[in-house]
Amino acid sequence: MLGKYLDNVREISPLIHNITNYVTVNDCANILIACGASPIMSDDCGEVEEITTICGGLNINIGTLNKDTIPAMFLAGKKANELHHPVILDPVGAGASALRTQTAKKLLDEVKFAVIRGNISEIKTLAAGSGSTKGVDADVADAVTEETLLSVVAFAKEFARTTGAVITITGATDIVADASAAYVITNGHPMMARITGSGCMLTAMTAAYITANPGNVLAATAAAVCAMGLCGEKAFETTAREHAGNSSFRNYLIDKVYRLDSAELDRGARYKVL
Amino acid sequence: MLGKYLDNVREISPLIHNITNYVTVNDCANILIACGASPIMSDDCGEVEEITTICGGLNINIGTLNKDTIPAMFLAGKKANELHHPVILDPVGAGASALRTQTAKKLLDEVKFAVIRGNISEIKTLAAGSGSTKGVDADVADAVTEETLLSVVAFAKEFARTTGAVITITGATDIVADASAAYVITNGHPMMARITGSGCMLTAMTAAYITANPGNVLAATAAAVCAMGLCGEKAFETTAREHAGNSSFRNYLIDKVYRLDSAELDRGARYKVL
Amino acid sequence: MLGKYLDNVREISPLIHNITNYVTVNDCANILIACGASPIMSDDCGEVEEITTICGGLNINIGTLNKDTIPAMFLAGKKANELHHPVILDPVGAGASALRTQTAKKLLDEVKFAVIRGNISEIKTLAAGSGSTKGVDADVADAVTEETLLSVVAFAKEFARTTGAVITITGATDIVADASAAYVITNGHPMMARITGSGCMLTAMTAAYITANPGNVLAATAAAVCAMGLCGEKAFETTAREHAGNSSFRNYLIDKVYRLDSAELDRGARYKVL
Repeated sequence: MLGKYLDNVREISPLIHNITNYVTVNDCANILIACGASPIMSDDCGEVEEITTICGGLNINIGTLNKDTIPAMFLAGKKANELHHPVILDPVGAGASALRTQTAKKLLDEVKFAVIRGNISEIKTLAAGSGSTKGVDADVADAVTEETLLSVVAFAKEFARTTGAVITITGATDIVADASAAYVITNGHPMMARITGSGCMLTAMTAAYITANPGNVLAATAAAVCAMGLCGEKAFETTAREHAGNSSFRNYLIDKVYRLDSAELDRGARYKVL
Repeated sequence: MLGKYLDNVREISPLIHNITNYVTVNDCANILIACGASPIMSDDCGEVEEITTICGGLNINIGTLNKDTIPAMFLAGKKANELHHPVILDPVGAGASALRTQTAKKLLDEVKFAVIRGNISEIKTLAAGSGSTKGVDADVADAVTEETLLSVVAFAKEFARTTGAVITITGATDIVADASAAYVITNGHPMMARITGSGCMLTAMTAAYITANPGNVLAATAAAVCAMGLCGEKAFETTAREHAGNSSFRNYLIDKVYRLDSAELDRGARYKVL
Repeated sequence: MLGKYLDNVREISPLIHNITNYVTVNDCANILIACGASPIMSDDCGEVEEITTICGGLNINIGTLNKDTIPAMFLAGKKANELHHPVILDPVGAGASALRTQTAKKLLDEVKFAVIRGNISEIKTLAAGSGSTKGVDADVADAVTEETLLSVVAFAKEFARTTGAVITITGATDIVADASAAYVITNGHPMMARITGSGCMLTAMTAAYITANPGNVLAATAAAVCAMGLCGEKAFETTAREHAGNSSFRNYLIDKVYRLDSAELDRGARYKVL
């Protein structure tokens, strides 16, 4: 039962430091509040160590990275490691440019991450340099299908083993794995891919879940992924009923996270553990 | 009666220069339009003096400040002072890092502000270095209660006296003070703290109100605070009726500002002057 | 009939590289998805050439330009030219500062644009340095009226001839011109001027239309302008019915783009060709 991890977010209300892109930053802030956490955004080298010190967890998202924010990611990441705060990485667009791929890989070398979340192409790029990335979306050739599921789960576990991080691969089916176990999650709706920021928001929300649930990173991450997927399903229902589109869907998605309670999450989460 | 200050915003449609954070910038632009003003965002040292020159007022918000935007704040602030344009400061997160605290204090030293708006922790930090700030939210220990109200009002008046600025402290009860009088405002709804940007939007909107009402900075600021609080109440009603969440609330808040008229503001404003 | 140009966007789903401002960037990303394209935002000199290489088209928007993003605009623009990707320019606020005017003019000198879209003041500034710009909005003195329409059309054709770009001038009446023909478009609603980002979103969407319709830049641009205007009309109907305001209008505008189909566009487009 995953609902208790949500209850802990609401009870503890962790403060999350976000170094993130300027495209979806407002949505990330609002979804952190929606799930029960508090956001602070800060990316200047002159303050990131101090800011991360007053927070409980750190979210590093490399979308719209630049020469000023990249060193801030390293400074904050190392400081958070020192303080034993959980750090999460969203390698947005890894594989789409050398700068993104190399920055993500160097972050992996120098910062210890509790969770890494990306689409299959991004995670493959990090693991082996072998993925191809179509901009910030997964390459169709990389899609997780029924046939490839077991091999992707094995890959995720192996990458979790080598990095020491929980690996979250999101797509039609989501995989959340550490070295020994994997949650295979089937919550979610295709409409989530028709807005910008579904991935960024999930990463931010996962930061809140793992910060509020120390010692349970794998299950807390799975809870965040199920919660987001379930809210995507509910948001789609409202969107379809109102003949609305992707902008309203984005609002409803955050709204549903705001209203989700642990009993609903327990009832609605759809996963198996492999 | 505060409605006339809103009418003046609608009639004059002041152009407001915003140097602000990238988290809530879109909301600040839309709320400026909603209240009847026009926004322009610009933060490069190569143009901020020119941009502020063609505007009527300047809004400086230090959320997501960085090494490039900080000097732009000083350049624009000094130019606006030269031109006798009103300048407003939102010291987001002052107290959360030395960079924020020092930047805010140095701005106070070098730029003359018409209004300073923050939560109680941020304002205390500016006044005495004694506040504690939990990220970008007020510290619970700093909360304005019935018991502390009179002392907070006295503090605000004193800080107004030393800075020459109208001091706006927002929270469950809002205080708007100059050296000799204080509006104590009870409009508003707790849901306003469940979105990012309530404070930023109020500061931006206050810039519009004071620019359109020269010579009435105190009352125009009180009008902006009442207007925002009243719209927060109305937005909450719509949100509750629709079983929606914080993302919809943000939209409704801006919508209500768009539709607010001066008669409604006159009827709905709840304040006393001490 | 312009609907086929929309169908091509949906079928090809072009990936669009955006170097754009941080005010409306989220709306630009969501409207690109809404019309059937995919967005990627990237503005660091260390990656923009690579990013634009994997894309089909490039959108350069100078709102909130700065010393770091300006050189990125030139690097990406030249690389896109080399690769024969269409490039579109949105000269936000040209005329409001020397930095904006000079950057836009230098971009015109060094990068070949397929389309340039702005309000009449911005386009006049680019053409002759003679326009005046009130912030990021058109100057009233520049308004396109029935009396001035023919001369503005002639001006647009002449500027199209000298630049080799399709010129899009948006306002109450929209003009889309190459050297020999001009679409005069009367879709749209005044409410589109009551949100931030109508122009930015149209420019981004135009990038998608021209990328998916090579060889038909003029008609594809006209299709994008009609589509946006038509969706503005439909969004206003929903906004009025719900007694909502500009924040909801923004969401509905993107929603309507999401739901627009080619048959509707064919029926609803209102234009003549001069």
